[in-house]
Amino acid sequence: MRIPAIAVATLLAATVAAASVALADEGMWTFDNFPSARVKQAYGFAPDQKWLDRVRKASVRLDVGCSGSVVSKDGLVMTNRHCVVDCESDLSSLGHDYVQDGFFATARKDEKICPGAGASILQSMTDVTQRVKRIAAGPARTAEIDAIETEACGEDRAKMCEVVNLYRGGQYQLYVYDRYDDVRIAFAPEVQSASFGGDPDNFNFPRYALDMALLRLYRDGKPAAFTDPLKLEASGSKQGDLVLVPSHPGSTERLLTNAQLEFQRDHFLPWRIEYLAQIRGAMLAESTKGEEEARQISEALENVENSLKVFKGQRGALVEPSFFAIKAGEEKKLRDALAMRTDLRGKYGDPFAEVAAVMMAQKRAYLPYQMLEVRYGAGSVLLNDARSLVRAASERNKPDGDRLPEFMNSRLDGQKGALLAEAPVHPVLEKLEIVFWLEKTREYLGADHPAVNALFGSRTSGEIATEIINSSQVGDLGFRKRMWDNPQQVAQSNDPALALVKKADDAARAARAKYETSVTRPLSIATEKVAGLRFDVLGKDIYPDANFTLRLSYGTVKGWTDPVHGDVKPFTYASGLWDRATGAFPFNLANRWVDAKSKIPAATEFNFVTTNDVVGGSSGSPALDREGRIIGLVFDGNIHSTGGAFGFDPALNRTVAVSSQMILEALRKIYSANALADELQK
Amino acid sequence: MRIPAIAVATLLAATVAAASVALADEGMWTFDNFPSARVKQAYGFAPDQKWLDRVRKASVRLDVGCSGSVVSKDGLVMTNRHCVVDCESDLSSLGHDYVQDGFFATARKDEKICPGAGASILQSMTDVTQRVKRIAAGPARTAEIDAIETEACGEDRAKMCEVVNLYRGGQYQLYVYDRYDDVRIAFAPEVQSASFGGDPDNFNFPRYALDMALLRLYRDGKPAAFTDPLKLEASGSKQGDLVLVPSHPGSTERLLTNAQLEFQRDHFLPWRIEYLAQIRGAMLAESTKGEEEARQISEALENVENSLKVFKGQRGALVEPSFFAIKAGEEKKLRDALAMRTDLRGKYGDPFAEVAAVMMAQKRAYLPYQMLEVRYGAGSVLLNDARSLVRAASERNKPDGDRLPEFMNSRLDGQKGALLAEAPVHPVLEKLEIVFWLEKTREYLGADHPAVNALFGSRTSGEIATEIINSSQVGDLGFRKRMWDNPQQVAQSNDPALALVKKADDAARAARAKYETSVTRPLSIATEKVAGLRFDVLGKDIYPDANFTLRLSYGTVKGWTDPVHGDVKPFTYASGLWDRATGAFPFNLANRWVDAKSKIPAATEFNFVTTNDVVGGSSGSPALDREGRIIGLVFDGNIHSTGGAFGFDPALNRTVAVSSQMILEALRKIYSANALADELQK
Repeated sequence: MRIPAIAVATLLAATVAAASVALADEGMWTFDNFPSARVKQAYGFAPDQKWLDRVRKASVRLDVGCSGSVVSKDGLVMTNRHCVVDCESDLSSLGHDYVQDGFFATARKDEKICPGAGASILQSMTDVTQRVKRIAAGPARTAEIDAIETEACGEDRAKMCEVVNLYRGGQYQLYVYDRYDDVRIAFAPEVQSASFGGDPDNFNFPRYALDMALLRLYRDGKPAAFTDPLKLEASGSKQGDLVLVPSHPGSTERLLTNAQLEFQRDHFLPWRIEYLAQIRGAMLAESTKGEEEARQISEALENVENSLKVFKGQRGALVEPSFFAIKAGEEKKLRDALAMRTDLRGKYGDPFAEVAAVMMAQKRAYLPYQMLEVRYGAGSVLLNDARSLVRAASERNKPDGDRLPEFMNSRLDGQKGALLAEAPVHPVLEKLEIVFWLEKTREYLGADHPAVNALFGSRTSGEIATEIINSSQVGDLGFRKRMWDNPQQVAQSNDPALALVKKADDAARAARAKYETSVTRPLSIATEKVAGLRFDVLGKDIYPDANFTLRLSYGTVKGWTDPVHGDVKPFTYASGLWDRATGAFPFNLANRWVDAKSKIPAATEFNFVTTNDVVGGSSGSPALDREGRIIGLVFDGNIHSTGGAFGFDPALNRTVAVSSQMILEALRKIYSANALADELQK
Repeated sequence: MRIPAIAVATLLAATVAAASVALADEGMWTFDNFPSARVKQAYGFAPDQKWLDRVRKASVRLDVGCSGSVVSKDGLVMTNRHCVVDCESDLSSLGHDYVQDGFFATARKDEKICPGAGASILQSMTDVTQRVKRIAAGPARTAEIDAIETEACGEDRAKMCEVVNLYRGGQYQLYVYDRYDDVRIAFAPEVQSASFGGDPDNFNFPRYALDMALLRLYRDGKPAAFTDPLKLEASGSKQGDLVLVPSHPGSTERLLTNAQLEFQRDHFLPWRIEYLAQIRGAMLAESTKGEEEARQISEALENVENSLKVFKGQRGALVEPSFFAIKAGEEKKLRDALAMRTDLRGKYGDPFAEVAAVMMAQKRAYLPYQMLEVRYGAGSVLLNDARSLVRAASERNKPDGDRLPEFMNSRLDGQKGALLAEAPVHPVLEKLEIVFWLEKTREYLGADHPAVNALFGSRTSGEIATEIINSSQVGDLGFRKRMWDNPQQVAQSNDPALALVKKADDAARAARAKYETSVTRPLSIATEKVAGLRFDVLGKDIYPDANFTLRLSYGTVKGWTDPVHGDVKPFTYASGLWDRATGAFPFNLANRWVDAKSKIPAATEFNFVTTNDVVGGSSGSPALDREGRIIGLVFDGNIHSTGGAFGFDPALNRTVAVSSQMILEALRKIYSANALADELQK
């Protein structure tokens, strides 16, 4: 479960749903607007300010798109193994395949820095709505937001400031984080233990995955100090008990208008699914060529398969007439209010019609924009780095205000850092991605599109990709550095990756500009009106759509009745793993587990499900009891949770977690990691 | 363009559309109900009975799922190259790759028998509706239909009799065909000439494809004799002239109710697209392993890519609100009539509600039915042959009436013939298909489905497939013959393909039985009511949905205004080919064409589009002028024609044909096939 690469969305009609489904465990609430009264009514308890402050200061946002929690005074952070796979991959070398075999630091000195990794912990939230809204949307407002951030953080590298847009322009807040740029890996089990059941079991339940990892935050070369970390509670939980999950959910789209949902349902999601299904097939087939091919592809394949399940689930939710009827009902309340009240019409006009008109434009503009700009080169590191070099060279010649935003001075360091990081290039994967991207670009834009003609010339996609793999120097850090430092050389270079970028960069920029003027900007104006209307009609007791900022959700341990599979119990136990392990991938056990049956009590809780409302990005969050003790580690949702992007179904939507019982048993008895286990419980 | 593997469908509300779009060139009309008055009004000419009879007797249905026309007194038949690829593939051997290089018989003695190919020409149509409908639907009616066919054809192998269900139970006709089981290949150009532009250009226009082939029908070892064949007319055609296309369109679904269309739009088509996109990716990647891999996979890949475009186009049409609104409008007329007239309600009840209820059942039942039964083994020849052997062994033990229909005595010869034909097994493709099928079955049915557990046991899909490829004898004709002749040995055999079939055959039969009782039968009853209601409300001046029986469509040469690409002219000319040929696959020229620019006049018509209403299965049909002369050879539709499955859009839907001018120029000047060219014009 990861943040799907989907545009961050709008608001959520929480109160609308709450009105019809009383006390549903719905919502990803900001820490300053937690519905304590509602939770207390349902569970007889609600966290107080002290509880909230303590948990907030132990809730970690990982740059990679995950959550985590501080679990020791020495900066130990618990998250999911699938959140550290980039780190494992970057650290791997011939003879050390940490992705496959796991990572085990026997002492603190063996903990290794995850290249490029970073983490943040939210320290304060300040409303800056008035200051931001004083200035009309556009470059001037962007500059004002930059100013707010700079005033608060300055050059302090131990802090990070972000003006956060909540409720899609309904509210702006300044979020100030403690920032950690030295994140080290301490423990991660083998992929086969963390992802037991592989893609077939992903998003499914019953489940037997030890999807955990331990990182450590460092400050000035030493473990960062925390006074009040969270602690594991291994006595188990029981159905009906309140469970609280602080996390950083990545993106929800619960407040899209019906026209936007229809675009998602009929165009965007089907397109993404077809795109991903094809590359999935290619990756699976490529992986059969040999072990090295499989190794190079495995991480990308895992991401593709994960995204594919998410998008299929989202589409599946949107074609359910009952689901769409709820969304339509929510919109109707707002439309009715608009129809009845002249003040609202005067204030907002008909924002729904505005959005619908933008959707017509989006239908025409999204494919060139996606293929030439957003998904440039698909997953090819070489092509993406080449594009950064080509664009940096021309953008840096321009006045700051005329540049593409990502090349403005305030962001140039970030660009440079990303480009000049030592990242492994997997030639097998690179070739597959480049060929795929070229072929799909031709397919979606047509063989007669000028950009397609420019890209292909008189060569096949295979020839183009092969030349890049064989001859481009973009994979060489020294070359990238030289090009960055000498932008004029970029224009002269005939490096094949740079050359390919230059052939269609004007077309890509044009597609982006067209999308921004015909979709992004008018949509932003129209949806801000919808958001205003919503506040006016429904009040402010609602939660904003997820946008990878800190939230708190509440719920309880509870199974569900599946439309296909019937009653699903909320817990799995260690004994079940041995029953499910057929020995054949992906139902085979890692070596350490093969003979471990006698070591782990059969009744040890393994995984469990709760009614908490989370989505991708919440991976790695702790599941807390009312005392704030960690009873589990969130790592997935059930298959119905994929529809959670658009709405929460309390009957079906479930969060999946690793039980603290199994975490501690495994650390001590399978991995002999007693020091870490002690640190977790200390 | 081929028959998509989609269930044959229902009726068509031709008059409904015709009422709103006056004189649209719509409809695939039976030869006994051609709308002569309407055509005469639009074009000042309509074919008389003599015209119709002559053309019917020169219109060929090819078993492979294509159409063709008799073009000489010696039984020469013109069709598409893509309709003879099975033949080319079956005839190929080491050193002779006819698929790649084409097939050229320099004399009649060099024409080769296409293994297993057959052709039929419709001789008579007799209404047998009363006799069929006298008996209630069920086994007794099936027996009556068998009796009608046997009475008419007996054991005469030169004839074929079929009781054809038109208007979904609205009408039954006995179709008697002349039958040809000796079909030989005379001419087919290289794949690169026939499919210039490959998948990117498939269903697109402008186009430069010489997608033609010549077969010859033989009777008693000699060329079959025809007194009045069709002739090629090479003087060209012009916009506005009437074009008539006799063909065998495979399947349309224009009369589905809205509930059925929604199932197609929201469930079936998205599922098929995702399935095909993944296997497409796998095939493309597998093809990069080497030339031999590419050769084994090419034909299957072409089929997958073709189907994928069709299904994507169909889905695209159904999500167009304007398109769906027309379908909804058609249904509303019938619903309104039902609401107003008690006699209709008494006769039919509410058949729309009945259909909608079946769709709910279909949603639950279709995936197990598809994966375990319809698409058993995906494209694996070994697994499909193994299933035939396993089932034949048990079915032949039963009384005729208790068997699965395909194993009843009347069809047993056909089963045996198909099973004991010498068909090539491509191990690379086989392995890919088996792995894909196993993985997707687990994905769609779930890892805990009993059939999935039985199939996988403690092995991976790769291990299962490898064992079958390495050890199964099912690919050996002698083994298949022995198993067919000794059914008791099938049960004892531990051949790995037979063994895999046996593991889940009970589950497959159960899925099929459930689908038949919960979907097929109740749907047939309900849609027959819809058909009756339609006749009662709209009269009989309508055409039935396509079902691979002979039809005649009318139209004219005409470009269109594309929503994305603007005005598209109706003709391409030889000169355009040289402009489009970049040299890189799929825009490279076959060797014979590289230096041919000077030989073919630049202004030679190459391909053209018409407004005729055709779909997959019409491939290979002649495009005729009012004199019945062949001006072109239908081989494709434009991209908008894919929506033609559900309705005809006169503004956008176009048929694509090879001009007779280019056919004759190419035969004489590129291929030096003067004898054949003479025969075509004699």
